[in-house]
Amino acid sequence: MALHFDRAEFEARIARATAAMAEKGLDGLLLFAQESMYYLTGYDTFGFCFFQCLYLGGDGRLALLTRSADLRQARATSIIGDIRVWTDEAGARPEAQLRDMLADLGAKGTRLGVEYDTHGLTARNGKALDAGLEGFCTLADASGLIDGLRVVKSPAELAYVRKAAALGDAAFEAALAETRAGADEGAILAAMHDAIFRGGGDYPANEFIIGSGEDALLCRYKAGRRALSDTDQLTLEWAGVYRHYHAAFMRTVIVGEPSPVHRRMHEAAREALAACEAVLRPGRSAGEVFEAHARAMDAHGMAPHRLNACGYSLGARFTPSWMDWPMFYAGNPAIIARDMVFFAHMILADSETGHAMTLGRTYIVTDGEPEPLSAALLDLFVK
Amino acid sequence: MALHFDRAEFEARIARATAAMAEKGLDGLLLFAQESMYYLTGYDTFGFCFFQCLYLGGDGRLALLTRSADLRQARATSIIGDIRVWTDEAGARPEAQLRDMLADLGAKGTRLGVEYDTHGLTARNGKALDAGLEGFCTLADASGLIDGLRVVKSPAELAYVRKAAALGDAAFEAALAETRAGADEGAILAAMHDAIFRGGGDYPANEFIIGSGEDALLCRYKAGRRALSDTDQLTLEWAGVYRHYHAAFMRTVIVGEPSPVHRRMHEAAREALAACEAVLRPGRSAGEVFEAHARAMDAHGMAPHRLNACGYSLGARFTPSWMDWPMFYAGNPAIIARDMVFFAHMILADSETGHAMTLGRTYIVTDGEPEPLSAALLDLFVK
Repeated sequence: MALHFDRAEFEARIARATAAMAEKGLDGLLLFAQESMYYLTGYDTFGFCFFQCLYLGGDGRLALLTRSADLRQARATSIIGDIRVWTDEAGARPEAQLRDMLADLGAKGTRLGVEYDTHGLTARNGKALDAGLEGFCTLADASGLIDGLRVVKSPAELAYVRKAAALGDAAFEAALAETRAGADEGAILAAMHDAIFRGGGDYPANEFIIGSGEDALLCRYKAGRRALSDTDQLTLEWAGVYRHYHAAFMRTVIVGEPSPVHRRMHEAAREALAACEAVLRPGRSAGEVFEAHARAMDAHGMAPHRLNACGYSLGARFTPSWMDWPMFYAGNPAIIARDMVFFAHMILADSETGHAMTLGRTYIVTDGEPEPLSAALLDLFVK
Repeated sequence: MALHFDRAEFEARIARATAAMAEKGLDGLLLFAQESMYYLTGYDTFGFCFFQCLYLGGDGRLALLTRSADLRQARATSIIGDIRVWTDEAGARPEAQLRDMLADLGAKGTRLGVEYDTHGLTARNGKALDAGLEGFCTLADASGLIDGLRVVKSPAELAYVRKAAALGDAAFEAALAETRAGADEGAILAAMHDAIFRGGGDYPANEFIIGSGEDALLCRYKAGRRALSDTDQLTLEWAGVYRHYHAAFMRTVIVGEPSPVHRRMHEAAREALAACEAVLRPGRSAGEVFEAHARAMDAHGMAPHRLNACGYSLGARFTPSWMDWPMFYAGNPAIIARDMVFFAHMILADSETGHAMTLGRTYIVTDGEPEPLSAALLDLFVK
């Protein structure tokens, strides 16, 4: 049994979830997001790549329907006592087995919330679910209900977030030690993950971003490595990860002499990050953080080079992405609260001159200034 | 520009796709699987975690709708010339922007195939898509159309698969060098990825499986590492990955003295793997491979300890899973053909006695015996 939280913490989370369900008039929840399952029960798997559903009743009852490969996984990692298996075979209809399970649990004729907005439920499986439960019970979209609870972290979760941040700092130190003219990007990536795995950390929910030369302007991972030139720019976006909790960071490291353009971009990024910090307070909105970033960038003439988003919440997320709800984009009304965790990333890419500059770190929201979770300086790193 | 295949190869793939569309009476395809986008155009990103759609017209025309963060990524990694951006903002409706794009491309009133069976299209986004295109064009489920092309590998793809397998062997050697009583699982994981990243390889589409002690019976990744005991069992499932092509392997390594139960389980796994190899031939079905495995296992009295599936196709896959179509399970009628790549995994977990044994490797299907892609012996490894 590898439970990463006390049973009492899981029980408190389940109590909050059932209270939120009652408020929405839901008799139960059909959970498909691995994040929700991990949060409520500890269940830890990538088996959500197949059809899999966790039922949470209004009385707190849990029942999982999954494949045989995940039966022992659920037993070993979660507090779920009632685990049922659907069998792979030609013509398998797990949605029919789900209906049978729900009938068995007395859920016929009830009103159930469904997590439709998750990679744990593909469009194909969503259609099968709707068809399979037609006439059996009433379904309502309950995406975001558990996310709304997950977004505020408990002290035990914040301890994992801090541990993740320490692993993130160790990964950056390891990267800097490898970064020089002639260094291979693959060796840098290897050193970063080495620090995290040896420190007891986990895989990130998405690939780290590593790009140099003209590809320093990209902000996604891609296959294919190169060696750094004598004068180069290396963009890294990474996360320390512990118990699936992420603390993300972003930097563009200069090899050789930074150009005046790099310096101007770095100055703009630093001011924009400071502007975000000033707004990252309880009661402000995610949209206001984006707008603070945009105003600062635009005041530096960086409007054509910035993105339409500048960060997001972080927590225990599973693939394909560590980006959690809510995100910093224009007009997002989501309200910031104490003990939320946010990654703010300032990204500038000037396709015309081929320059990139990025700067980002993770914060815990407090009653006052947000607490940055990294010992690394915000200075321009030059190697 | 980081294209991993010749333009001519992409063009040939697109020609095969449009021919398959014509056969199904489809005027165009709305592609949501990152695997399909990578296969047809090279486009390489984890941006499929958000709404993103690649249109392929019957005439081979390509147009991508994605977010600003992926604009340069698509330019840098793909042959897609027509890239359009939907903007994050409160109330954003990318499906409406998709309809506008399709109108612009003259697709109004046409019959379009949709990839619904992919993590690139969540149930929520699938509903939005259907509603957004209601009355504009006719949609048909075309999941699996591109998968059916991807499953047979070209010589250029097989070269990447072989490179992936070599990285997989290097990862296993690195793991064995770290495996001993007292060794930390995290150090083993670090060593494996170090070999792959330094060799120019990529992240796997799912986490490696690593479990020892009672957790050697699990076949999924989970957070939380332990140190190996003086007598222990260590289950590893990993893949060498190159240009996103996977070659997967699986082994249970014994620390100290293997028990007679381990030896019996290993013997059963080895015979079951040989039975699979005998059936892994052009013209046979995926179901027949599963049944060969099941018969051999059951003849050894292993029926209660085996899984309901024993392998699957491999290729260039993205998170959350490297498992590709088709899978070896009971009754699967999918026909095996030359130049397909399959991972066969023999997994035994005896919960009663707490013993685990696994054995698996990747093959290229030939006209004769399947070609195993690993230099590693099938013997029981003891450290």
